[in-house]
Amino acid sequence: MTTLVIGAAGQIGRMIVSKLHERGEPVIAMLRKPDAELEALGVEIRFADLEQDFSHALAGCDQIIFTAGSGAKTGADKTILVDMWGAIKLVDAAKQAGVKQFVMVSSRGAEDPDNGPAAIKHYSVCKKIADDYLLASGVNYTILRPGRLLNEPATGGFSTTMPDTKDAQIITREDVADACIYCLQTSGTLNKIYPLVNGDQPLTESLI
Amino acid sequence: MTTLVIGAAGQIGRMIVSKLHERGEPVIAMLRKPDAELEALGVEIRFADLEQDFSHALAGCDQIIFTAGSGAKTGADKTILVDMWGAIKLVDAAKQAGVKQFVMVSSRGAEDPDNGPAAIKHYSVCKKIADDYLLASGVNYTILRPGRLLNEPATGGFSTTMPDTKDAQIITREDVADACIYCLQTSGTLNKIYPLVNGDQPLTESLI
Repeated sequence: MTTLVIGAAGQIGRMIVSKLHERGEPVIAMLRKPDAELEALGVEIRFADLEQDFSHALAGCDQIIFTAGSGAKTGADKTILVDMWGAIKLVDAAKQAGVKQFVMVSSRGAEDPDNGPAAIKHYSVCKKIADDYLLASGVNYTILRPGRLLNEPATGGFSTTMPDTKDAQIITREDVADACIYCLQTSGTLNKIYPLVNGDQPLTESLI
Repeated sequence: MTTLVIGAAGQIGRMIVSKLHERGEPVIAMLRKPDAELEALGVEIRFADLEQDFSHALAGCDQIIFTAGSGAKTGADKTILVDMWGAIKLVDAAKQAGVKQFVMVSSRGAEDPDNGPAAIKHYSVCKKIADDYLLASGVNYTILRPGRLLNEPATGGFSTTMPDTKDAQIITREDVADACIYCLQTSGTLNKIYPLVNGDQPLTESLI
C-alpha cells in the first residue's frame, strides 16, 4: 500500500514521511518545491500544488494523509484556498483515483466552530467544511482532530476525550504523526472521527 | 407570503425591501443595527446578526432573499464567517422554519472558482460552497449569479448567458433587486440557477 503525504514539507508531514520510509513502507511526498531533507531520505517526491491541478500526484497511491495547512503567516484567503478548497479538491481526486483511505488531520473546534475559540473561528469553519465534504464523499476516511500542537517528542500516550480546560488540550506533533500512521494500518479506524490529545492510553486502546 | 430580506442594509437589499413594501407585500428587513431610512419606510425590522444566533429572525417568514455580504472592506475571514458560514447556517434555519423558497444572490465565478478571476477566487469558493449547501439542503432555491454590479437604474433587460468578455459581464443592482422579487413570484424559477447580466430580454423571458 503506497501512501501519499500532502503537506510533506510541514512539521507533521515530514515526520510521517520519514517514519513510513524507515518502516519500509512505500511513501510519496507531495511538495511544492525542492526539499533537501526529504530528497536525502530517498523517498519518491512529486511536485504539485494544492492551488493548481495536482491530480498527477495521486497516480498509484492507495492511501492519503492530508496534513497540509496554509499556516498562520498567510491570510484567511489562503485558509480558504488551501485548507478548505485544496482539501475538497483532493477528496474529489482521491475518489476518482479509487484511494482506499483518506486520513485527514483536522483540528479541535472543527466539530462546532460556533462554540470554539472566536479568534480562529474562520479556520474552524474551513476545517469543518473540508471534513464534512470528506464525510459525504464515499471515500473511506479517518479524521483526527488534535488539540494544540507541541514540538516535544512523542509521548506514546493518547486520549480521544478533549479536556474542558483549554491548556490541557495539547498533543505533540510526533504523536499526531504516529497516530496518522497507526490509522493507515488499522481497519478499525475507518470512517471514524477522533478528537486527539495526549493522555494515558496507547494508540491501540484510544483509536478504536 | 412574508419575505425576509437578509442583507437589508446593503444596496440591493435596501431596494428589495423598498420595492416589496411599495407593492404591499409583507416584508421583514433583518438588520444588525438601526437604519433610519428603512425604519422610515415603516417595514418590520428584526435585529439579528449572521455571525450570532439569528434564528428568531425567521419566525413567520415564508420566503428568504439572501443578499448579504461582508463586502470588500473587510478581510477574507469575514468572507468565511458571513458570506459562507452565515449563509450555510441560514439554510439550516430556513429548513427548520419550513421556508418555501430561498433566493440566493450569488456571484459569477461561483460555478467554477478555479476558472474564474484569480483575484477573487477565495470569494468565489465561499459563494460556491454556500450555493452547493443550499442545493443539497432540500429547501426550494433560486440562485442568481449576477455579473459585476453597477449603480445605474434598472434597465429591465436581462440575459442568462454570461458573455465571454469580462467587461460585458455587468448588471445594475436595481435589475438584480427586480430579478429577486420576480423569482419569489414565479414558481418556474424554483430550483434553478441563473447566471444574470443585462441583456435584451424581459424577466418573463429570461428567468424561465
